[in-house]
Amino acid sequence: MAKRIVLLGSTGSIGRQTLDVIRALPGYFRVVGLAAGRNIELFTRQVEEFKPRYVNLVDSEVPISGCQFLPLEEMACLPEADAVVVATSGTAGLGATLAAVRAGKRLALANKESLVVAGEIMMAATAASGARILPVDSEHSAIFQCLAGERQAPRRIILTASGGPFLGFSFEEMAAITPEMALRHPSWQMGKKVTIDSATLMNKGLEVIEAHWLFGVPFDNITVLVHPKSIVHSMVEFIDGSVKAQLGRPDMRLPIQYALTFPDRLANHELPALDWANFNELTFGPPDTERFPCLRLAIEAGKKGGTFPAALCAADEVAVELFLAGRISFTDIPLIIEATLGRHRNVDSPSIEEIKEAGEQARRVAMELAARTVR
Amino acid sequence: MAKRIVLLGSTGSIGRQTLDVIRALPGYFRVVGLAAGRNIELFTRQVEEFKPRYVNLVDSEVPISGCQFLPLEEMACLPEADAVVVATSGTAGLGATLAAVRAGKRLALANKESLVVAGEIMMAATAASGARILPVDSEHSAIFQCLAGERQAPRRIILTASGGPFLGFSFEEMAAITPEMALRHPSWQMGKKVTIDSATLMNKGLEVIEAHWLFGVPFDNITVLVHPKSIVHSMVEFIDGSVKAQLGRPDMRLPIQYALTFPDRLANHELPALDWANFNELTFGPPDTERFPCLRLAIEAGKKGGTFPAALCAADEVAVELFLAGRISFTDIPLIIEATLGRHRNVDSPSIEEIKEAGEQARRVAMELAARTVR
Repeated sequence: MAKRIVLLGSTGSIGRQTLDVIRALPGYFRVVGLAAGRNIELFTRQVEEFKPRYVNLVDSEVPISGCQFLPLEEMACLPEADAVVVATSGTAGLGATLAAVRAGKRLALANKESLVVAGEIMMAATAASGARILPVDSEHSAIFQCLAGERQAPRRIILTASGGPFLGFSFEEMAAITPEMALRHPSWQMGKKVTIDSATLMNKGLEVIEAHWLFGVPFDNITVLVHPKSIVHSMVEFIDGSVKAQLGRPDMRLPIQYALTFPDRLANHELPALDWANFNELTFGPPDTERFPCLRLAIEAGKKGGTFPAALCAADEVAVELFLAGRISFTDIPLIIEATLGRHRNVDSPSIEEIKEAGEQARRVAMELAARTVR
Repeated sequence: MAKRIVLLGSTGSIGRQTLDVIRALPGYFRVVGLAAGRNIELFTRQVEEFKPRYVNLVDSEVPISGCQFLPLEEMACLPEADAVVVATSGTAGLGATLAAVRAGKRLALANKESLVVAGEIMMAATAASGARILPVDSEHSAIFQCLAGERQAPRRIILTASGGPFLGFSFEEMAAITPEMALRHPSWQMGKKVTIDSATLMNKGLEVIEAHWLFGVPFDNITVLVHPKSIVHSMVEFIDGSVKAQLGRPDMRLPIQYALTFPDRLANHELPALDWANFNELTFGPPDTERFPCLRLAIEAGKKGGTFPAALCAADEVAVELFLAGRISFTDIPLIIEATLGRHRNVDSPSIEEIKEAGEQARRVAMELAARTVR
C-alpha cells in the first residue's frame, strides 16, 4: 500500500526535491496534502500533478477545485497521513511541526529552526506522543543512518561542514562579498536563506543545536570539521572508539528519500552514486571561528539555552534579509547577531509563546542595530 | 553474567589481543577454553592468569594441572561456551571452525582461510545451524558494523587496503625486498604470514573472497581501494546510493571487542580514539594489480570457485614460507602461485576432503615449482 504523505512547503527547494523523489518511485507514495506560501503558479501545477485531497496556500485564499483547504496545523496532524514532511523555512514552520509531533506523527523534518528554538519542548512532546522525527538535513540524516542498529548512545558527533564558498577568504575579502557571490554554493543546491547561512557557517551552528536535541549529545561532544567536498555527511563516534560515517554525493534527494522509506531503502536510479573509480581524497580541518563568528555565536546560544536560540534565529533572519537586499555587508551579519544576543534577556525553559516573543523582540533589536550600519 | 569464551589460537597476535580485551573488561568475560600451538611458555602463563577449564596444546601433551585436555574440534563446540574465537592461522583452523559453525555457535572469526577455501560449505552450515559468524578482520568488522540495522543487502562493498609497505616500489625495487623489509607493516601489528600477505596484497584478495561469502555480494560488486592511512576500514554502498564507512585507529582490539560484545558496545579506555584535532586527510586510489598480481590471482580464484581458493591458499602458504626462509624473492611469490593455479584441476562444489586434497596437491606443486627458482 502506498505511503500517504503530507508535504508542507512544497514549492521550496526541499519541497520540490521531495516531489522529485515521490515522482521517481511511482506507486510507493501518495500525496494527500500539499501546502506552500507564495509561489501560486508552481503550487497549482503540483496540485494538478499529485492531486492531493487537502491543500493550504498561506498567502492566498483562491479555492482550488477538487481540494479541501485545511489550516497548516490541521494538515500537520491529518489522521490519514503516514508521514508529514515539514519543509517550510525559518521559524514559520514551528506551529505545524509541534502539532505533528504532539499528534505522534512520523515527521520528516527539514525545518531545523523548530528544533533550534524549541528543542526542549519538541523532544518532550516526541517522548510523550511516540512521534518519530526523521531528519532530512544531510548531516542529521547521516548521523541517524549511522545510529541504525546501535544500542548505545553516541560518545561524540562529528558534523561536517562544506565551509561554504568563502573558506579561504581574508577578512578584507569577506567584507566585499556580494549576495550574488554568497548565493553560489560550491556543492549544495538549496534555498537562499540556507545558502547564506552556509556561507556564514550559521547553518552549521544551527545544525549543532539541532544535533544536540535530536541525538541527546552534549554540546562539548559535538565536533565540527570543515570538509569542502561534502562527501562525508557526518560521523558518529561510539563508546568503544569505533566511528561510523555516512557518505554520498551532495544531493538532498538522498536524505529526503531515506526519511520517507526508513527503515527500508529503495533503489532510485535518479539518485547519484559515488564514483569509486575517481574516489581519491577527502580533507578535513577545524573551522575558523575568527573569520566565521556565526558558528561560535550559535553554539554559545545553544549552550545558554532558554530563549537564546530563538533570539539567534530571529537576528540571523533579519541580518540575512538585509544582506540579500544589499543593505548590509556580509561581515555585518555576525556583528548584528552578536549585538542582538548581547541585549537579550533570557527566559529559562520557555513556553512557545515566550519563544515567539523572544524572536519578535530580537527581530526589533536586530532591525534597530542594523539601521545604524545600513549602507 | 559473564560471557563464557573459548579462544583457539591464544598465543598468536589475535589471540593475545583477545586476551588484552578480556583483561581490560573485568567481569564481562570468563575464559572457559584456551588452545594454542607451539608457544608453550606463553600458553602456560595464559592458563595461570585466565584459569580455563579446558585446554589444548597442539604440539604438546604435557598435562596442565587443573585443566582438562580437549580435542580442538570438541572445544570449538563446547556447550557451555557463549562465543568461540577462532584465531588460529592458515587452513589449520578449518576443522574447528566448521565444528563451531555446525554446532550453531556464535563465532568470532579471525581465521579468514576457512571462509576462503570452504565458503560454500561454511555458509550452508551457518544457515542450517543458526550459527552467527562475527568477523574479526578489521575490514569485515567494518562492513558488519555498517550493515547493523539495515534491512537490504548491500549493492557494493568497498574494501580498503593499506597497500602495504611497498606501495610506491618499482618492479626492480620489489625484486630486492627482504623478509625484514616486508615484516615492517606501516599501520597494523599482525602475525608474520598476514604481514607478508599484506605486503603482496594477497591478504586483500583473500578478504575479497571472505567478503563475498560473508555478505553474499558478487565479486564484481566488491571494489578494492588503497587507503594508506588505514583509518577507513571499509565501506558499504546501499541500493539508494547511500554509503556507510567505519573508521578507527588501526588496532585489532577494536574489531575483536566488537565481535565479543555485539550487539552492544562497551567503553574500554585502552582502545584508541581518533584524534579529531588532527584529522586532516584521507586518500584512496585503485590498487596496482600489475605490481601486485596476488590481488588479481586471488579474485580470479574466488570467481572460479570450487577448489581454486584452496589451491591459492596452499600455494601462498608455501611461497610465503620460502620467502621468509630467504629461499625465494618477493616477486617469486605471485609467480609460484600463478603457476600452481595454472596446473590446478578444479573440483566443483567440493567436500571438505576434496578441499584438503586440493590444498595438499597444490602444496606439492608449489614446492616443485619453487625448487626451480630457489636461490
